[in-house]
Amino acid sequence: MSQQPVLPDALSAPLSPNVELLLGSRIPARLAWTHGSVQPRVLPIWFHWNGETLAMATFEGAAKLRDIQDGTVVAVSIDTDTFPYRSLKLRGPVSLQQTDDLADAYREAAIRYLGPETGPRWCEALAGRAQVLLTLTPTWAVESDMSGMPFMAADR
Amino acid sequence: MSQQPVLPDALSAPLSPNVELLLGSRIPARLAWTHGSVQPRVLPIWFHWNGETLAMATFEGAAKLRDIQDGTVVAVSIDTDTFPYRSLKLRGPVSLQQTDDLADAYREAAIRYLGPETGPRWCEALAGRAQVLLTLTPTWAVESDMSGMPFMAADR
Repeated sequence: MSQQPVLPDALSAPLSPNVELLLGSRIPARLAWTHGSVQPRVLPIWFHWNGETLAMATFEGAAKLRDIQDGTVVAVSIDTDTFPYRSLKLRGPVSLQQTDDLADAYREAAIRYLGPETGPRWCEALAGRAQVLLTLTPTWAVESDMSGMPFMAADR
Repeated sequence: MSQQPVLPDALSAPLSPNVELLLGSRIPARLAWTHGSVQPRVLPIWFHWNGETLAMATFEGAAKLRDIQDGTVVAVSIDTDTFPYRSLKLRGPVSLQQTDDLADAYREAAIRYLGPETGPRWCEALAGRAQVLLTLTPTWAVESDMSGMPFMAADR
């Protein structure tokens, strides 16, 4: 019997309009992890949210795979570049899965990020390349949305 | 006699058009650090680049100040949301400086991020609030610019 993970409130259905907007956006996740014992790392990476987990695919041999193993806890921020800022922050362990070709979640992400025409062409150009899929099971999540703050109201 | 820090190539004058664009942009820095011994953290934060250091101001009492002290090594990504992606990644130790009011670098950042009219009004609304200025001295920096990649050329 597998244990059903409990999603943090911010990620439990029904999603807030803010979280729905961010998870459906073309904003890359900013993925942070720890190198060695105390050195932080951060980079942008495509994500695909399936309703319960956040999938991020990387290519075999990527430097981050020397630090990120099965069960490693990572932190992610999905947030907007423009004011008033919106953000969703997640944390949790990732599980790793090797694939012989591009991961399905990567193909889905490519369509979202690049569109239904360019996405598949992007994947075609990379076809056959082995990936490692990082699947983040969120144990913590917090959203924020500055659009309701007093300063914005005073601005009208 | 103070030792002159040596800037990483990507940040040494003359800056590449890519780095200049990112450091002058309204894109928030994504700041990563380590909590405890191995827990990563990441969040968006305004930055101000003065040619040698990257200043980021936070308000007194912020949770990150429990983890980030004088000399703590942090990682930053300044990168675009849209394809073809551009990015600048930095790492290095931060020094901390307490201020009784908003830090000057925060005021400069507010003008860049919010514009010459809204920026000062934003600061006025926060006037008198104590801050802690994090000054990152980069010891490592790498830029990337996808706009020159073969896929983009084939797309024309």
